[in-house]
Amino acid sequence: MRASKPAIRGARIAAFAAVLSILTGAGFSGRGSSLPGKNEEPERPYAEIAESLRVEGLKSEGAFAFLERLTRLAPARLTGSPEFASAQELMRREMEGLGLKSWREPVRVEHWVRGKIQQAEIIGAGAAPQALRIAALGLSVPTPEAGITAPLIEIRSFEDLSAAGSRVRGAIVFYNHPMNPSSQDTFASYGEAAPYRTRGASEAAKLGAAAVLVRSLTLRRDGFPHTGMVDYDPDVPRIPAAAVATLDAEALSRRLRAEPGLRLRLHLDCRNLEPADSSNLVGQIEGTEKPGEIVLLGAHLDAWDLGTGAHDDGAGCAQCLEAVRLIRALGLKPKRTIRIVLYPNEEFGASAGRDYARAPRRSSERHVAAIESDRGGFLPLEFGLGSAETFERLKKWEPLLRPAGIRRVGPGGGGGDIGPLGGQGTALLAFIPDAQRYFDHHHSANDVLSAVHPRELELGAVVMAVMAVVIAEEGI
Amino acid sequence: MRASKPAIRGARIAAFAAVLSILTGAGFSGRGSSLPGKNEEPERPYAEIAESLRVEGLKSEGAFAFLERLTRLAPARLTGSPEFASAQELMRREMEGLGLKSWREPVRVEHWVRGKIQQAEIIGAGAAPQALRIAALGLSVPTPEAGITAPLIEIRSFEDLSAAGSRVRGAIVFYNHPMNPSSQDTFASYGEAAPYRTRGASEAAKLGAAAVLVRSLTLRRDGFPHTGMVDYDPDVPRIPAAAVATLDAEALSRRLRAEPGLRLRLHLDCRNLEPADSSNLVGQIEGTEKPGEIVLLGAHLDAWDLGTGAHDDGAGCAQCLEAVRLIRALGLKPKRTIRIVLYPNEEFGASAGRDYARAPRRSSERHVAAIESDRGGFLPLEFGLGSAETFERLKKWEPLLRPAGIRRVGPGGGGGDIGPLGGQGTALLAFIPDAQRYFDHHHSANDVLSAVHPRELELGAVVMAVMAVVIAEEGI
Repeated sequence: MRASKPAIRGARIAAFAAVLSILTGAGFSGRGSSLPGKNEEPERPYAEIAESLRVEGLKSEGAFAFLERLTRLAPARLTGSPEFASAQELMRREMEGLGLKSWREPVRVEHWVRGKIQQAEIIGAGAAPQALRIAALGLSVPTPEAGITAPLIEIRSFEDLSAAGSRVRGAIVFYNHPMNPSSQDTFASYGEAAPYRTRGASEAAKLGAAAVLVRSLTLRRDGFPHTGMVDYDPDVPRIPAAAVATLDAEALSRRLRAEPGLRLRLHLDCRNLEPADSSNLVGQIEGTEKPGEIVLLGAHLDAWDLGTGAHDDGAGCAQCLEAVRLIRALGLKPKRTIRIVLYPNEEFGASAGRDYARAPRRSSERHVAAIESDRGGFLPLEFGLGSAETFERLKKWEPLLRPAGIRRVGPGGGGGDIGPLGGQGTALLAFIPDAQRYFDHHHSANDVLSAVHPRELELGAVVMAVMAVVIAEEGI
Repeated sequence: MRASKPAIRGARIAAFAAVLSILTGAGFSGRGSSLPGKNEEPERPYAEIAESLRVEGLKSEGAFAFLERLTRLAPARLTGSPEFASAQELMRREMEGLGLKSWREPVRVEHWVRGKIQQAEIIGAGAAPQALRIAALGLSVPTPEAGITAPLIEIRSFEDLSAAGSRVRGAIVFYNHPMNPSSQDTFASYGEAAPYRTRGASEAAKLGAAAVLVRSLTLRRDGFPHTGMVDYDPDVPRIPAAAVATLDAEALSRRLRAEPGLRLRLHLDCRNLEPADSSNLVGQIEGTEKPGEIVLLGAHLDAWDLGTGAHDDGAGCAQCLEAVRLIRALGLKPKRTIRIVLYPNEEFGASAGRDYARAPRRSSERHVAAIESDRGGFLPLEFGLGSAETFERLKKWEPLLRPAGIRRVGPGGGGGDIGPLGGQGTALLAFIPDAQRYFDHHHSANDVLSAVHPRELELGAVVMAVMAVVIAEEGI
């Protein structure tokens, strides 16, 4: 905590000069510049502010402390659940502890319950049934109480499914489509494979399938089933859907080749209840000059119930809180409002982000920018900016982010929850950390605090704080 | 493994054109370009080669397989030890398995033995002695058989030491200088704190200290002592030196404040034996046109004995082997020789790198470039280049490295083992991965295979292969 609490109002001109000197190569070292100011207020260049945020962050590792409390005190945060409400109350108290003004904005969310039974057994010739490590997909309907026992048909692609035609009727479709390991961009590989999880059930149901089993979306071969939402086509009967661990998917595939007549018994007692009442949790530092102009820091508080949602998206929540803690620790009082929004229901389609964007309250507000952190708490690499115009205007701040490890500010921003603000002229920024390890943990029992590194997490909070401070002071 | 094995000779002109088009923004996507060649040989642009190396690498994760074998079959590799010799024989067989021509070049190395006893106990008022988690520093002399029992004096800096003056005489000096967490650059923090480990014993001995206990060089608070070399001043009596885990250092510091009369009993039975015979292990793919011109890939095979040297520097060894495996898997036959050198004795001062550089055999060779990997098997971020001139010449290849995640090719290269080649006109390149987690593991029992991520490790091998292929074909 720094003792001095200068206002940053006078910093602008000097900061621009500092940035210009940075861009012309004049020895930016991440340390505070001592350039003289051009107006009468106390001088505090952004480079110095950025450094102070980094120093305070890396010394205290506050983001990890927030995340530790969240994952310990509210490990289960499935949207619509009573546990989610407790988690939200915990976050409200954290905001209070930071001295933020906070409130809730009501929304409706999905209310799906995993139940107690998620079993799959291979029934083959001779030997006893062999259990597979599975997890129901979110929003999946249950099987009948006796389970579903049916022949198994392995499918590698939707083309395979079409080709299988009438063989699909009455069968359990086993989508064994691995994520492609050969790209450095794991999110691209995820995007390519995810439709088997989201649309696979309905595509199979169109051909009369009884249920689907989907290979987990991860690049690792391990025993963790990775859940995630299934997106049923409303015009097709809904059939049960579960994820199977990659190691078990590969064992199953081998066994099917040797024994094509295998059957599977699938038993799920998950349920879809009526949509539930929930809310977006909002907390803010009010702007000193333009309180109605807002820089939003967003993350989702809901998480899959198999782990503790440490990376997805406890990390994002912790970074939003920590960014604000850092700003307050430095005694900064930016012109515009810095607001945190923690959303429910992201894992079931990010409806709360849309609700937030169209809430009546928004009409008296102007969201200058929104930064979302929902890619895990890994090493910060980039800020992705939603539009070329935003890019032009924010690119100049890149040197302030470098000493905290940001390698690039470039096109490619947004995020599921902040996206709906884009239509209202808000600059959308995605905080983009390294993603080589993200899908090892994503949506599984492996998404726990021990998989998060305190410094990697903290650096993300630091760069979000730097970006928020600069935009809240300068606008875009 | 790709079936086609085209030569890359004809690729040059087209590759230059491709790179030019990349640099002018014409849609480099990491996929192979289809630009027409300007000569008669089969066409294979470097962008396509780089992509194939990445695809083969990420699909097979071969570097992790090498590292798994190394850390399982040769976990202990302290330089000068019989275990080191076994590890080297294992690596020779790996080179043989890759079809490399290999040989050994004799060198002399330190031969230090940790012994069986490394104990430190706090002896205070009342309670039973309290054990600290310590490890002898490499090259430390032993204590007498009865151990050393002496008052303890806590020192935060060399200035503190001077100020303590005559109080140091007969005491055990406890250097409790934490690594600075506030920089993003953990190697800089390491460099600042390392002198307490390397020079602390002799500085304390000058004032008559009996022994030193040094806070472990890590940014984490945990129970792992981190060892490392002590560098005795030849003009000062050598006193025993051990590292203490950071948590224990902090507990000790608190207790000293409460109870300034504390004494410590230190017992080490490590020993320095006569220098031992060892060798640099060399293996290579001979160049098709200029076999006497060499691109060297270097790493050190020796490792501290507390863990299995997975990151330091098993990762580097595995990446060198994997880079060559990838090049062979693509059937590439570069003009110049690509050579792997695995050094002993790096942890005791990198003497084998100097021996390599001045071996008589070097006189008939020309080392065009040397790339060292000795910063752990983490996410690749940069190539550091030893000189501005090298930078000018290699910068143009940066776009080839981007699809594997390299963010920057810039000044700042070299490495302990390849450094001595610099004086001979060799371009020195440091492979620079992320280092936020490196010192969690470095020189401790925590440096084990489970701390290495297969994709992060592999991407390093991929970028080393790309760089090696381009330089071996193009020169510098």
